[in-house]
Amino acid sequence: MDYSKRALEAHKRWGGKIEVISKAKIKNKDDLSIAYTPGVAAPCMEITKDPDLSYVYTRRRNLVAVITDGSAVLGLGNIGAVAGMPVMEGKCALFKEFGGVDAIPIVIDSQDTEEIIKTIKNIAGSFGGINLEDIAAPKCFEIERRLIEELDIPVFHDDQHGTAIVVLAALINALKVVKKEMKDIKIALSGPGAAGAAITRLLIEVGVKDIILVDKKGIIYRGKSGLDFSKQQLAAITNKDNIQGELKDAIKGADVFIGVSAANIVSQDMIRSMNADPIVFAMANPIPEIMPDLAIQAGAAVVGTGRSDFANQINNVLAFPAIFKGALAVRARQISKGMKIAAAYALAELIDEKDLRADYIIPDAFDKRVCEYVSRAVAEQAIKEGLNRI
Amino acid sequence: MDYSKRALEAHKRWGGKIEVISKAKIKNKDDLSIAYTPGVAAPCMEITKDPDLSYVYTRRRNLVAVITDGSAVLGLGNIGAVAGMPVMEGKCALFKEFGGVDAIPIVIDSQDTEEIIKTIKNIAGSFGGINLEDIAAPKCFEIERRLIEELDIPVFHDDQHGTAIVVLAALINALKVVKKEMKDIKIALSGPGAAGAAITRLLIEVGVKDIILVDKKGIIYRGKSGLDFSKQQLAAITNKDNIQGELKDAIKGADVFIGVSAANIVSQDMIRSMNADPIVFAMANPIPEIMPDLAIQAGAAVVGTGRSDFANQINNVLAFPAIFKGALAVRARQISKGMKIAAAYALAELIDEKDLRADYIIPDAFDKRVCEYVSRAVAEQAIKEGLNRI
Repeated sequence: MDYSKRALEAHKRWGGKIEVISKAKIKNKDDLSIAYTPGVAAPCMEITKDPDLSYVYTRRRNLVAVITDGSAVLGLGNIGAVAGMPVMEGKCALFKEFGGVDAIPIVIDSQDTEEIIKTIKNIAGSFGGINLEDIAAPKCFEIERRLIEELDIPVFHDDQHGTAIVVLAALINALKVVKKEMKDIKIALSGPGAAGAAITRLLIEVGVKDIILVDKKGIIYRGKSGLDFSKQQLAAITNKDNIQGELKDAIKGADVFIGVSAANIVSQDMIRSMNADPIVFAMANPIPEIMPDLAIQAGAAVVGTGRSDFANQINNVLAFPAIFKGALAVRARQISKGMKIAAAYALAELIDEKDLRADYIIPDAFDKRVCEYVSRAVAEQAIKEGLNRI
Repeated sequence: MDYSKRALEAHKRWGGKIEVISKAKIKNKDDLSIAYTPGVAAPCMEITKDPDLSYVYTRRRNLVAVITDGSAVLGLGNIGAVAGMPVMEGKCALFKEFGGVDAIPIVIDSQDTEEIIKTIKNIAGSFGGINLEDIAAPKCFEIERRLIEELDIPVFHDDQHGTAIVVLAALINALKVVKKEMKDIKIALSGPGAAGAAITRLLIEVGVKDIILVDKKGIIYRGKSGLDFSKQQLAAITNKDNIQGELKDAIKGADVFIGVSAANIVSQDMIRSMNADPIVFAMANPIPEIMPDLAIQAGAAVVGTGRSDFANQINNVLAFPAIFKGALAVRARQISKGMKIAAAYALAELIDEKDLRADYIIPDAFDKRVCEYVSRAVAEQAIKEGLNRI
């Protein structure tokens, strides 16, 4: 069970988790003349005439860059570019293993927002899509917004949207279990950082009317002093009665608790103070906001965490490989809200009504159906919105 | 023989010449816990403590970026970043097929020197080395110089140094055939761009005393008006008698002609005007400065070209995979002049004295001995110069 020791040994043995291989086998002079000079001039000239042909003649058709500045790596904090690489390579491994998508890890040795944007824009033509990873909030919001605006390939900050999509999928099914509807529920969310902000916006998009956010300093409300720009924006669209107070005040009477914050900050008394049949997604890693057994003992009807050793693991790997696979399949210009929502509903649909239970609201990370089904829904939605280029 | 048509078909079939695969096979939750969270935190923390461990725990140990701005792609000129990708992918395929080195193609959508430098510096921590490719002269000189100065990983502009190394290897052996020595020969070089400048400097480094450069406007001499900074620098170290004139004036009486310029600019009369047993390396692509049969008919003792369909192909693929393999093997801080010279002598040595002939002065591109032998020489030289980090 000592993951650290085993991980160090495995990483040393792998000597890096990715490998770049050649699809062109070069065994003789003729092979060389086709894959390289003089033959290679022909695809170059075709792409000069029509840049979209880069999706036909180069790997761009299936290639994503996984990019970080190392400012918020896992729960380790700002460990810098080079030290973030094992996570980026890990993400690339998951892209390939779960989605068949080729991914290249890039670490950027700058933590300046404008320089990160400029660097990514300069190299973007090398890729079919960009997965931003482990960039600290609130900087990550500006970086993603600008890149989406200024590039014509999909840009997706997985820490935000991957998490939001899987949370939405889990919530869709959890609400079926407790027979409640999005428009009626009250949600308390702890941790309005990158993931929390994206969850909030996506839930509002699908009809949630009442959501209250809480950070380390308590409930976020309009007019509160000391809020950064991102939290000011969130205050404007949440907490409809503009209540003040602490986490316990937000949770009281809520139908759903969503935690993307810190270990053990939710007590059994707080769970007991929730509305009937409470749903608890306690996703702090590695220690949840409340341990599942305690939550259930206190009356939680459905519990999910980020961990693989409990039921209902809310795991990004259910989303990002399929999202990019679907977007690349139709050369989508971007990954729209509609595509994210389509992904979440597709993910939720994979569990038949007859199989749905309090401890089975979301497919297993290794469920073989996920990638194909979700990526198809994403591609279809892109076409529906006219975001496809083929 | 229609390379263009076959290359387009092959490139479409490949859908990109590289593929990124995962060395970590992820089949179950335990695999996921080792390759990704929570296990992956351990190598991250180790690298935070000692950045050199990125060479142990990530692919950096064997990973080169092949980078262009698309400003001088093959003989196609300034076709831009995205259109240059098939060549970059081709180079990556050659790195893997000939050297076992993983390589990632990156195209930079800027042709501003400072911005290219900044972009590459920002992403350099992702790689173990950087191969610059198809960047126009004279900009390429400044970009390479600055990156070598400011980064602690090998930076190598292959159009310059790869060519120079293989030319030097070919010349070492050609001189054995005609029984002349470096210090005694007079060389005329046509085309003092990226490759020509590097060839000139490397030949001077190994003892050539008399070399005259010629560009489209004639012989380069000290005090000539209209020379760019690079050519002014070259004028200062070449053309010892500071003669003026045209290509034919430079070639007259020369022992060696080296062409990295344009098709059919050398006549048989020019070859006849050379010193006894002239050596002719006519490397313009795809049409040499003079066709080999014409050169031989006019008395050339040894002829080499850039083409695979003639004897003595002077091909960069003999150098760059082995150079980087050797540099990465000892985590060299840079690729020094000494390492380049060591590579050239090793390459020349691969042809035994008993096998050496006018039409066999350089190993075949597919000679299996090349990579191992040359990379070892490069690594040993790095150690000799104290440039190794392991």
